[in-house]
Formats: sequence, C-alpha cells, structure tokens
Amino acid sequence: MIIVLKGGATAREIELVEEKIRSYGLTCHTSKGVERTIIGAIGDERHMQPEAFEGMECVEKVLRILKPYKLVSRDFQKEDTVVTVRGQKIGGGTVALIAGPCSVEGKEMMLGVGSRVASCGASFLRGGAFKPRTSPYAFQGLGEEGLRYLEEAREITGLPVATELMDPRDIDLVVRYADVIQIGARNMQNFRLLTEVGKLDKPVILKRGLSATIVEWLMSAEYIASEGNSQIILCERGVRTFETATRNTFDVSSIPVVKGLSHLPVIADPSHAAGKVGLVEPLAAAAIAAGADGVMIEVHPDPERALSDGPQSLRPDAFREMIPRLKKIAQAVGKTLANA
Amino acid sequence: MIIVLKGGATAREIELVEEKIRSYGLTCHTSKGVERTIIGAIGDERHMQPEAFEGMECVEKVLRILKPYKLVSRDFQKEDTVVTVRGQKIGGGTVALIAGPCSVEGKEMMLGVGSRVASCGASFLRGGAFKPRTSPYAFQGLGEEGLRYLEEAREITGLPVATELMDPRDIDLVVRYADVIQIGARNMQNFRLLTEVGKLDKPVILKRGLSATIVEWLMSAEYIASEGNSQIILCERGVRTFETATRNTFDVSSIPVVKGLSHLPVIADPSHAAGKVGLVEPLAAAAIAAGADGVMIEVHPDPERALSDGPQSLRPDAFREMIPRLKKIAQAVGKTLANA
Amino acid sequence: MIIVLKGGATAREIELVEEKIRSYGLTCHTSKGVERTIIGAIGDERHMQPEAFEGMECVEKVLRILKPYKLVSRDFQKEDTVVTVRGQKIGGGTVALIAGPCSVEGKEMMLGVGSRVASCGASFLRGGAFKPRTSPYAFQGLGEEGLRYLEEAREITGLPVATELMDPRDIDLVVRYADVIQIGARNMQNFRLLTEVGKLDKPVILKRGLSATIVEWLMSAEYIASEGNSQIILCERGVRTFETATRNTFDVSSIPVVKGLSHLPVIADPSHAAGKVGLVEPLAAAAIAAGADGVMIEVHPDPERALSDGPQSLRPDAFREMIPRLKKIAQAVGKTLANA
Amino acid sequence: MIIVLKGGATAREIELVEEKIRSYGLTCHTSKGVERTIIGAIGDERHMQPEAFEGMECVEKVLRILKPYKLVSRDFQKEDTVVTVRGQKIGGGTVALIAGPCSVEGKEMMLGVGSRVASCGASFLRGGAFKPRTSPYAFQGLGEEGLRYLEEAREITGLPVATELMDPRDIDLVVRYADVIQIGARNMQNFRLLTEVGKLDKPVILKRGLSATIVEWLMSAEYIASEGNSQIILCERGVRTFETATRNTFDVSSIPVVKGLSHLPVIADPSHAAGKVGLVEPLAAAAIAAGADGVMIEVHPDPERALSDGPQSLRPDAFREMIPRLKKIAQAVGKTLANA
Repeated sequence: MIIVLKGGATAREIELVEEKIRSYGLTCHTSKGVERTIIGAIGDERHMQPEAFEGMECVEKVLRILKPYKLVSRDFQKEDTVVTVRGQKIGGGTVALIAGPCSVEGKEMMLGVGSRVASCGASFLRGGAFKPRTSPYAFQGLGEEGLRYLEEAREITGLPVATELMDPRDIDLVVRYADVIQIGARNMQNFRLLTEVGKLDKPVILKRGLSATIVEWLMSAEYIASEGNSQIILCERGVRTFETATRNTFDVSSIPVVKGLSHLPVIADPSHAAGKVGLVEPLAAAAIAAGADGVMIEVHPDPERALSDGPQSLRPDAFREMIPRLKKIAQAVGKTLANA
Repeated sequence: MIIVLKGGATAREIELVEEKIRSYGLTCHTSKGVERTIIGAIGDERHMQPEAFEGMECVEKVLRILKPYKLVSRDFQKEDTVVTVRGQKIGGGTVALIAGPCSVEGKEMMLGVGSRVASCGASFLRGGAFKPRTSPYAFQGLGEEGLRYLEEAREITGLPVATELMDPRDIDLVVRYADVIQIGARNMQNFRLLTEVGKLDKPVILKRGLSATIVEWLMSAEYIASEGNSQIILCERGVRTFETATRNTFDVSSIPVVKGLSHLPVIADPSHAAGKVGLVEPLAAAAIAAGADGVMIEVHPDPERALSDGPQSLRPDAFREMIPRLKKIAQAVGKTLANA
Repeated sequence: MIIVLKGGATAREIELVEEKIRSYGLTCHTSKGVERTIIGAIGDERHMQPEAFEGMECVEKVLRILKPYKLVSRDFQKEDTVVTVRGQKIGGGTVALIAGPCSVEGKEMMLGVGSRVASCGASFLRGGAFKPRTSPYAFQGLGEEGLRYLEEAREITGLPVATELMDPRDIDLVVRYADVIQIGARNMQNFRLLTEVGKLDKPVILKRGLSATIVEWLMSAEYIASEGNSQIILCERGVRTFETATRNTFDVSSIPVVKGLSHLPVIADPSHAAGKVGLVEPLAAAAIAAGADGVMIEVHPDPERALSDGPQSLRPDAFREMIPRLKKIAQAVGKTLANA
Repeated sequence: MIIVLKGGATAREIELVEEKIRSYGLTCHTSKGVERTIIGAIGDERHMQPEAFEGMECVEKVLRILKPYKLVSRDFQKEDTVVTVRGQKIGGGTVALIAGPCSVEGKEMMLGVGSRVASCGASFLRGGAFKPRTSPYAFQGLGEEGLRYLEEAREITGLPVATELMDPRDIDLVVRYADVIQIGARNMQNFRLLTEVGKLDKPVILKRGLSATIVEWLMSAEYIASEGNSQIILCERGVRTFETATRNTFDVSSIPVVKGLSHLPVIADPSHAAGKVGLVEPLAAAAIAAGADGVMIEVHPDPERALSDGPQSLRPDAFREMIPRLKKIAQAVGKTLANA
C-alpha cells in the first residue's frame, strides 16, 4: 500500500503513519520528496484497509498495490475454474444455457417450461421459490412447494436446477432440492449469507449487486471462497445508472474485466438487465461475444400472465428460435453452446 | 395505473391488457386516440406491478397513479410520527444527536466514548457489534461481547442505545440489548430481515441503500410497517455516484423529499456519507438546515487507531466543539438540538 | 401528455392546468377520480415541456405519451437510414470499420496508420485534429496541419475521413477537409454546434454524452435533423457510472434500444468506452453481436508513445488479427464486415 | 506519479516505462518488490497524463501524487478569492444572493422581477437570454433583446447582472451587457469557450457539469485561469444519478470539498438541482450551512406561465419570505447574507 501524505505533514505525523503500518505487521519505506512524503507499506496488505489511513488528517491519498482478494484472483490460480454439475459444465469452452421461469408458479407450469427448454438445448433449469420483491404486497414465491416442482422438473429432464437462497434460515431446505444455489443481486453483500454458502459443497451463482463495483463483487466471492467453497459462478445482471430506457444498464465490459482478474466463470443474465423481452437476444449475443461462460434466460409459457417479471420473459417458441443464432456467436468466439 | 399502448396495437392486444387489469380486480377506462390507445386501471393498484404490463409487447409505457406504499405515506397519516425511546425523541421539533463509535472495540473504549458524548449532549448512543465488511479479512465486530458493553454504556449514561442487526438468526440476541435496531444500507432490501423487525416492538433505523431510490427506501419501510411496527426512522447516508472525492454522495435533497412523501422521521449519517472527518460538520449542518430530525455522528477516542471507519470519526473534543454550532442551525430552522 | 394532479387539487387549480394546456393549442380530457384527477392533453405535445407542468404545485406527475423527437424516430421513417460516403456505407447490413489514431500526431504517422488499416479492411479513416482535453496542459491537436495529413491519407487510401469539430468557428475549415464530421461526447449538448452541422450536407457522427440518456441523445440528433441534415450516425461510447475498472461503462443495450426507437444507424466506439486495449476486441464483438452498424477503433503505430489515448489504441498488427474474428460475429448476426 | 507494474513485468517493459517518464522531463525512482515493481516519477507531473501510462500493457495502476490543476488550487493560493462586482461581493464572509428569472421573457417581466428581488435583498440579478434547451422545439431565449432588458434592470436596481454565454461567437455581444458571464453545466467542458472567457476581464460563474467530477470541474476552472482570468465562481447545481425524485442530485458535499481544494468561491443553484419549488429553500439553507458563498435562486412573477423552468421558480413573495430564514442560517455559520 502506498500512502501519500499532505504537503507539510510533520515528523510526528509521519511517525504515526509508520507506527500504524507496523501495527499490521508490515514494514515501511518512506520517501521524503520536495512536495510530498510518500510511505510504502511492504508485506501482506490484505488485512490493512485503506480507510484506516484515509482517515488520518495528514494523509492525502492511499493506493493499494495488491488486490484485496486472493483466492478468487488469477494471480492465485492461473487456469479457469470449470464448474460441473450432473455432467453439465459452466466454463472451459462451453457456454451454459440456464433457462426457466422467473418464479415457479405451479407444478404444471414448471414441468411444462422445464421440458420445453430442455428439449431446445438448455443445460440448466432455473426457477425461483423464494422471491425478493421490492413491494411487500407482491407475490413472494411458493417456498418449499416451488422447490418440490423444481425437483420434479429435474427428474423429468435430467438437468441440474438452480434456485435462489435469501435467508440463512432456509439453507437446509434449499440445499435439499437445489443443485446450484443462487445469491441474488440484493444479497451480494449479505455477508452472513455468503459465509453460510461458503461452507456448502454446492456451486453458487453470485449475482452482481445493482451498484457493486467489480472489486466488491470479487470480494463477495472471496467471502464464499474463504470458507472453502470455490465452486463460484459470477453473474452480471446489469447495474444501476441514470438511464431509464432499460431497467438496468447491462455492463458487458465486466465480463472480460472479470475474466482477466479472476479464474472464476462468468455468466450473464440479460433478462433482468434489460427488463424487456426484445432486448434479451441482443444482450445474450453480446455477452457471449464478449466472453461469457453462459447465459441465464427467463422463459415463461404465457408471459402476459406471469406473476413476476413477465416483461422480460421469452415464450418457449421464441427461446427455441434464438438458440441457433446464439450457437453461431458462440462458435465465432471459439466456444460451444451447451447441449445445442 | 395508466397504460399507454404502442401505435398500432390490435383490438386483441387491447383486450388482453384489459383482461389482465380485471384479473387484479380493477376496472378499465380505455381511450382510443389517433396516435395511441390509453387504458386507465381504476381501483387499488397497489397489488398490481407496473412490470406486469411493461412486459407486454403492445405496451409502450406504464404510469402509476397512486404511490406503491401506503402505511408510511403522508396520505395515510398527516401528522409526523415521533419516536420516543427512554424519554429521548426523534421527530417533532427535536433534532436527535446519535453518537458513538462505528464499532464497539472494547469495554473501556465504549464506556469512555459513551460518557464523553453523553456529557456533550448526545441523546442516543451508537456502536456496532456486528459489522458488515466488504472484506472477509476485516474486523467483523465483537458480537455479543460488544452488545454487553453497549448495555453497560446505557446503564452509565442513561441514554438509549442503537446497534445494527445483520442476520435474522441474531434477532433474539440483539433485541435483548438494543433500544433501537439499525438496518444497514446493504440490508435495506434484505426483505426477510425487514419482515422480522416488522414484528418487533422496537424502533428501527432504516438506512437508505447505496443505490436505492427514495421510492424503494419507502417500500422497504412499508415492509416493516406492514408487519405492524410503525416506529421507523429513515436514515440518509449517501448514495453511490460517479464522484470519487467523497465515499458516497450525500443526497441532502432526500430529506425534504421524504418528509413530503412520508410521516416518518428522517435522520442523516454524515459520517458514512462523507468518509472524511473534515466533512462531518458541514454535512451535519446541511442536513439539519434541510430539515433532518437527527444526525448520527461517529466519535472515536483515537481515530488513528480505530478498527473500522477511522477516517470519518471525530475525536470527542471535536464533537463537543461542534455542538453549539449545530445548535444554532437547529434554531435557525425552528428546532431544538436534543439535550444540548 | 397525461397530467396527474395531487389529491385535493381544487377546481381553480384544475382550471389553471387546463388553461395552460389550451395555451399550447391542445385540448383537455379531464377525469376526476376518487383519489386523483387526471388530465389528458390531446394534440401535438412536442412543443409542450413536461417541466412546464411539473412545476405547478397541484401537479403530482406528468407522463409524455408521444416521443419528444420526431424526424429521427422510427414512427416518422420505418426503413433504416443508410449513410453512404465515397462508396462506403454505414447501416443496411454492412458493419462499417472506422479506424485510425486518436489524434493526428504527424504526417508520417497518419499516412502510415492510414495505409495499414486500409489494407486490413477499414472502410473509414479517423483522426483528431482538434482534441477536447480535460487538462489545459495536455496536447490539444495539430489543428489545420492535422486536417491536411488526414486529407493526404484519404488520397492515398481512397477512404473517407472522419474528424471532430469542437467549435462553430472552425466549421468552414473542417468541412473543407472532412468527409464525416464528428461531434464528441462533451459537445453532444452544444446546441449551437448541432444547429450548425444541421445546416451542412455532410454526414455527422454524434457521440453519446457521458451522462446523456438515450432520449437526450435522440433529441440532440433531432436538433441536427430539424435543420435539414438527416445523415446522422449515432455512436455509443460508454456512459459514466460508479464503476472505476473501466474508463466508462459501455452501454451495449443502447444499440438495440436506439435501433428500435430510431431509423438512424448506430455505431460503437469500444476504444473510448473501455480505456484499455485488452477490452477493445470483446467490446467491438459485443457491439456487433448486439446489432451495431459499425465500430470505431483506435489504432496507433506505437501506443506507448501516443500523445493521447495510448492505453486504448491497438497496434496495427493487433488490429489486423482482430478483423477475421469480428467478421465471424458480423456473419453470425447476418451482416457483412465492410471491406473485410 | 506512481506507476505500479503488473506482476511479472520484464526488464524491457520496466525500461520502456522509465524512458517514457524521462521523455516528459521527470526522473525515475524504481523499487523492485517481491510481488510488484513500483516506479515513482519525480518532478512536475502536470504535463503527464495518467492515461499515457495506463495504456501500457505492463502497467497495473497509476496514482497521481500532485493535483492536476495548479492555479485554482489552495496550494497555489492560501487565501480565499473574493470576487467583487459593482460593489457586490462573492466570497469572504458574505453570502451572495443571485436572483431572477430562468429566461428573460420580456421587458416588463424582467424589470418587474428585478425590482422585486432587489428590494428583498438580492445582490445580483440573473436572467438567460440564450437558453440551452434539450429540445430544438423549446423556447431558445430572446437573444440580444433579452440582454437589453437585463441592462435596463441593472440601471433600475443598481445590481450587477449575470447571464449565460453558450457560443464563442456571442462573446462580444454578451460582454457588452453582462457583469458576470455564466458558463452552463452543459458547457463545462466546452474547452474553446472556457479559453475565450479566460481572456476576459469579467467574473465567470462556472457551473458544474451533470456528470463532472470535482477534479474535472476544477480542471475546467484551470482552463479559464490559465488564460489569465482568475475571477472564477464555481457553482454546484446537482449531478446526475439514478434518483428520479429530483431532477438532479444536489451534491452538497462538493461545497466543503471544493473549498478545501481551491481558493475560489463556491455558490449553489438549488433551483436547477431540485427542479421543484418546494425544495428550493431547504437546499439553499443546506448549501449555506455547508459553507456556500452564495445561492442562485430562480424567481418568476407567474411560474405557472413561465416559458422555461417554471416548476422550480419561486414567486417574488415566496422569495421575500425565505430571506430572513436564510439570513439566520448564514449567521449560524458566522457569515452575513448580502444586502439582507
């Protein structure tokens, strides 16, 4: 960490900074320049927070040298992590196709959509049983009943199922049914939940928070990894900006940026990012072209009657027609679209 | 709710929208104009989500007429809510002064700071025992031990104590010690946690999320209120923007905006918003001038050695010196600074 | 336009709103509901600004029904606009490839890079002679000398050249040399400059402002079109958000959104959006996959020594190697990469 | 400037960076650590852009040590700049009160409002003759006619007048009438315009751009100062964020931040920031409490009929009633409200 002091910092102030650096077990390298004194802190800076120094009155700026995350970084592991569940892969040259309804709304609906998307080439099923909703008056999901329908869909299709976990108290329940645990954008910094899924032996899809920087997203992945679970799939789903034409601004750059910084696979959720059905295919294509290891697509048998997220759900027919086009994009970047 | 259809919407499409409106128990008022057909949905639109219509291919725009929250709105209750805890008020002409360290770091430290801020005129003590930290390697709080020191500080000073709750599994523990439960910015949309604190008979400070709109913030308050707990104090603590000179951008406008929309008291946390000690006083003064019902100020006996958030913590002496100036601002807007 | 009044609006207030609507030559359709009065303004709402009503104390919300732009909208012209310059096309199934250095730094450099990118398949040359720089102390461009080198590069390669115009006083000069005028992001709302280029018979590349909404971007295009110049090419180059890992956040969704709203061609500038050379190819690929009609790529013979924007410039070899990959993406979406 | 290289940077890459630093006339101080090589560039770094290094493949991060602006910084001039025009002050313990209509709409209107606000205690008059409007179909101002009415208002009231300049071609005209030149938010990075006003001997109000960082804002001030004009008044008017409840998010923190970094006076424009009349007073009060050297308030005789910005304009009576309250806030922070 490099600490730049304000012009006119006193000898006593310089000493205080040095003392603080040493209290973390690091050593100091101090350069007194004409205009500024600069102190380098040498050693493992991971346990030292920049804020600890930014707060000192004599400090002007602080620059981290090393990344604040370790286990999830490319420096720690050069090769791409490939997550495999029931024979289906995410990462390593395969573009996974995760499809299904936003919410599990009923048995017939879940099994119907599940079979349809499986027959089109989906490699994972998705469906929410616990739904985080902005309004307390909106449909909150079917709970365990929804999980049971997901399980039946898995039995019929043979595909692994992914579903969201919102509350540490539901872990045992969700783990019993799900192959992949999803942590939603609003829980990306629910650190207690991250710690709990870190103790599991199940892959975790970690969605990026609405206003999370890439570094914060990787720090949340580090929470999971630091508990022992390294089967983490990062999922870009758009960030919040001033633009109102789309529900969120899909940050397609985050895909190549994260793949440079981390060995973890990165997928994209164009349905939530866009909030509009007509944008799902262009964004899915863009994500794959930019290097995504998978796309998560909402499919609903009757979007007009969906209990949640209708606007962005494809009908099964539209989903089927999109597949050959995504397949060509995957091939153009030297990858294979799973099962398609 | 008003639904504007795209130019060229067919009779069948219009019918589908009308049918959907009626399925929520509302009635339709359809105007077919030259360029656009517009459908008004008449009745209680609270259970109808705009997204449900935005997703329909024939729909161009949707406008809510009524607010999506009810219990926390000014329409529902004209008079200001005043929260009173152990004789200390938030709202109703009194500007509360909530002070203490970011984290409870030890017994001596907590009791020392508590006594100091109490003697300067603080009306509530604060201190975190469970800390949400971006890094898994950072200090996570003392847990129950910290809560015990808070309790001792209350005994010594007679002031009510506020502390953060992060996990529904900790509710019984935290409730045992705290007078006021704080929900942090990162948990503003942890809906399960909101539901749980909604069942308590304890005041709740609900911090605004880093990228939460004012409407979303009020919807989160509505989660709490809809479970029966109406002792809610909203706390502005800055939002995330492109600006990097401050940790967050303190949205001072949210104070008068929220006071117009809701009857709940609104306080400000200038310490977290600014991230720099030199900005605490100007932002606290600005918040009070804009109508805040209280300010939450971090005070640390030795900020240079703080385990968290040192940069933005005032020393007790600086806190004491600031009080008479804030008092004048409170008087300038016709209010009284609590205990000062 | 639909105007929703606050609960309790008086008869006099309602009349004032109606009177104001009529003063713009529109007629009123007023519905007095139980909770709210809603007034529809019927007629050409383009000359009526929503703010004019939002400011009235009795008004709660205003919703535009029609788009605020006309000439550039899809409603006005169904077919895609295709811009053709010296035989090179932008739009209509061809993905244009606009390449060259950020700044024209010298004759040899411009002619060298121009020849190299032309031989790789570029369809337009770019190069800045007037550079908008954040710092007054940074290189500001060669001015007319730079324009002359651009002209020479055109003579050698036969390709049309695009260059930036920053000041209405430079129009005659720039028009003399350039085939395509570029309006930079910082000038997207320099309305006087827009009006001037609207009077030209030259294609204009209109970059999106750093914090411009899509509607504002189209309104700026409308400024140009309303003066008679309909050869407008929109260029997405990233918007400003809280993320600091990239210089700007490339809003790939804007491409399909704009293509839905407008008949104008849309290109992308992945170099400026990313600010990092390693991101140029993934973002160019993503843009084409999402439907862009062209990409603008910075190429520099020696990026390490560039006078501006080195970090994001490709070397000519890297540019050449990228072309076949972008060609495959273009083909995957049913288009042809120009000249490649 | 400190340049951190990526792990594994080669000796040749290190040399290239050092060579580039030396090409700017600075010297190098290179530390090869276990994990990273760090190169300090010693000397006047103002002419060296961080991007020049960020683009090099071996570079991980770049940290400026010195500020990129000089003339406008506190380091360059310790004492506050006080701007005095026709006996009226901005800065130095006086809170200026700049009031008038958004646009000059006619003679009677301008003279009427001018007299009214002058009699209430305004210290400057404002009024736009050239209006930057998002829509080409909106009222664009009266041009020279408007300037003449402003001049008459000055004669009647004796107060200096401020008006906006949008185009370098209008400088002679505007200078003839105005006492203070205003550069609007959309022109904050119209560098050619900044250079021109830098050559004048007139005070310039420089509004902050909608998405300008504080550093960029100061760099734009540096453009003006570097041409010789140091009578610069910075004006905070809100930035663009995701929040839609207010037109812009008023960044009250920028006031104390800028006052720390620069010696220039800082005023606030609560009218444009808020976009709603009910927010003008709380934001004006907040700005003064946070240390602003003035507030700019829109006043219109009949906001319901304003040709622009009606929603945020106060009636003269409301303006008058607000003054004593703002006066108390000014006194609470040890200042005097001009003329009041």
